[in-house]
Amino acid sequence: MLQLSDILEARDRVWETSRHTPLAHSYTYSKMTDADVYLKLENFQRTGAFKIRGATNRIATLSAAEKDAGVVTASAGNHAQGVALAASRTGVDATIVMPEDAPISKVNATQSYGGDVVLSGADYDEAAERAHEIEREEGRTYVHAFDDPYVMAGQGTLGLEILEDCPDVETVIVPIGGGGLISGIAVAIKEKRPDVRVIGVQAEGAASAAAALEKGELVTLDGVDTVADGIATRSIGTQTFEVISEYVDEVVTVPDSEIAMAVVYLLERSKTLVEGAGAVGLAALLFEHFEFEPDETIVPLISGGNIDLNTLTTVIVRGLVETGRYLKIRTVLEDRPGALEDLLAVLSGYRANIYAIQHDRTSRDIGMSDTEVEIDLETRGPDHVAELIDAIEDAGYPVEVLV
Amino acid sequence: MLQLSDILEARDRVWETSRHTPLAHSYTYSKMTDADVYLKLENFQRTGAFKIRGATNRIATLSAAEKDAGVVTASAGNHAQGVALAASRTGVDATIVMPEDAPISKVNATQSYGGDVVLSGADYDEAAERAHEIEREEGRTYVHAFDDPYVMAGQGTLGLEILEDCPDVETVIVPIGGGGLISGIAVAIKEKRPDVRVIGVQAEGAASAAAALEKGELVTLDGVDTVADGIATRSIGTQTFEVISEYVDEVVTVPDSEIAMAVVYLLERSKTLVEGAGAVGLAALLFEHFEFEPDETIVPLISGGNIDLNTLTTVIVRGLVETGRYLKIRTVLEDRPGALEDLLAVLSGYRANIYAIQHDRTSRDIGMSDTEVEIDLETRGPDHVAELIDAIEDAGYPVEVLV
Repeated sequence: MLQLSDILEARDRVWETSRHTPLAHSYTYSKMTDADVYLKLENFQRTGAFKIRGATNRIATLSAAEKDAGVVTASAGNHAQGVALAASRTGVDATIVMPEDAPISKVNATQSYGGDVVLSGADYDEAAERAHEIEREEGRTYVHAFDDPYVMAGQGTLGLEILEDCPDVETVIVPIGGGGLISGIAVAIKEKRPDVRVIGVQAEGAASAAAALEKGELVTLDGVDTVADGIATRSIGTQTFEVISEYVDEVVTVPDSEIAMAVVYLLERSKTLVEGAGAVGLAALLFEHFEFEPDETIVPLISGGNIDLNTLTTVIVRGLVETGRYLKIRTVLEDRPGALEDLLAVLSGYRANIYAIQHDRTSRDIGMSDTEVEIDLETRGPDHVAELIDAIEDAGYPVEVLV
Repeated sequence: MLQLSDILEARDRVWETSRHTPLAHSYTYSKMTDADVYLKLENFQRTGAFKIRGATNRIATLSAAEKDAGVVTASAGNHAQGVALAASRTGVDATIVMPEDAPISKVNATQSYGGDVVLSGADYDEAAERAHEIEREEGRTYVHAFDDPYVMAGQGTLGLEILEDCPDVETVIVPIGGGGLISGIAVAIKEKRPDVRVIGVQAEGAASAAAALEKGELVTLDGVDTVADGIATRSIGTQTFEVISEYVDEVVTVPDSEIAMAVVYLLERSKTLVEGAGAVGLAALLFEHFEFEPDETIVPLISGGNIDLNTLTTVIVRGLVETGRYLKIRTVLEDRPGALEDLLAVLSGYRANIYAIQHDRTSRDIGMSDTEVEIDLETRGPDHVAELIDAIEDAGYPVEVLV
């Protein structure tokens, strides 16, 4: 199993390509939770996520012959960028297989870091199949995204940094996808400071570690469904399962609604861009998915910031809806001049700004003399939403809340 | 006129409520420009912008009687939040007049910092009128957003920080709205280090300082129009004009398209949220609105991060359009089954992902047997956009580029 010594050795290697990221105290979340909250901001890492650490350690430990033959991997996300940069910085040739529908921004980023991108397959599994073919055909070393002790050891350097920069830490919260990140961090922390808690967080829609721990054996999910694409993994690894079982105190899950809110809080209040996977630790803290003491020193690991800007706009809207600041309703008006103005007067009386209106007289679901209207509104919070809906209903309009 | 000693005295006061923000070297922009670029990240300041510095200094220098009587100001933006927090932290009562249509997020933030918000007036000018009435009625001190030496001196503490954290600096780039920020910074820097250049940047749609410098006297614009609402000011101040004329080396302007691109770069590549006004300095550098030497050490001041999330989504789309990563076209199809599929086959052949399609048979501008289609596409850059448009036209479809 992974040893502390592996991580200490990895530390000297990861500096070739990665940086010691900031640990920042947050007054905002400390006030919101009564804990003493420090964010470990790995979204400021090179390539925008922690994956560069593990990839660097894996490539640095290859033999000279293996380095000459190059590496190959499959990924649609941060691992692709990490391997591409770690390889190009150390003069190793890297082929990265990405699914054909991978976001253009991720393909561009991987190429810009020096990776040779091959688009192949409809999904990650098919891309991985092609990558293993290339491994065999070209004699390249396959760099696994998580189930590899060198990769885990590289990610574990984050545990050393947290202990060093925040010696008072009592609890660290770490996202789990395949489990490589938390495996490295848990070994680093528990071997040096067994008193510090390590809590893992998964998205509800991709909770393979939680399922495996419950069942006592690896569980492969039939499918995954979460906004946190960076941890949308059907199963953790054999080796990471072993480490997690031994070292991790607790694994909790968070729903997408809370992940979206955490992303929005990090943007608005901390002015920092975090991807869904990177925000699950803060979500678990803010929405109290585990117990903690007042003033407990807690470090949510913000693992990455590579969110596609189109996905981001969707997540922002979801976060605004969940915090009562965006309301979409459907109602029905009489189809006569002035009917819409009457409704708008109700809305403006409650200072709800209008984003968009769709007015449709051809809907099948309503009477011939009625008009269906969908309205997108800016609201001031859950109380304002409740007041507003009451006011519209009191004025005689039916209200169906769409989001 | 403002003196260096005013700024040195302000420094001891601003620590009551504000923080020394990070200065971060950026490999990304250094590579893009061949300069050596450090970002001064004032978006991480309390309240999300530099305004807290000037407000703190102004309030700290009130007499005991003035403090008891409280302060009043008008603002729809960062100054509102700065005054609210500076006042509440020092036990001074603050009334903030905001225009009636101020964004809900800004109203909420101002209230959360302890300000007593009065919504009054259709625009800033009307809100300011009401604030001056309150000044007279209640004997409060009016805290001007920029044309006040104590306010300028508070903002000037940023100049001291930049010199201290980046002693090799050769050029500092500073946004100009009313001119309070650049006045303080220019006096701090030029009095200590006359060899360092201070360059001011305005939005093209709100270039009152550029106009005033050209004419040699204050110019009040008829209107302002820019995505950078934080610097959408119709005129700089009498006092700031005097300082800018004396101390600032050059004032340049940037268009909204470049501001939007800079906001998108800061999000995607630096993982940091910056408002339009905060991004103009980086825009001026990236799009070379002034001359600089290779390897010149340049510090764009990132002045704030308070961008309404709805505005942000608009700016993101604009930034993606400008960088060739979002394309909206209109075309015309024969109104027969299969016509849309034929067009989509052309698009997918060029790997352009579709965001949205609007299909409209009722447009007046086209033949009765035709259908108008608007398509929103994800593209890979300017070259890809050009290729794609050629391919659609070669397949016999007319193309009108909408954005």
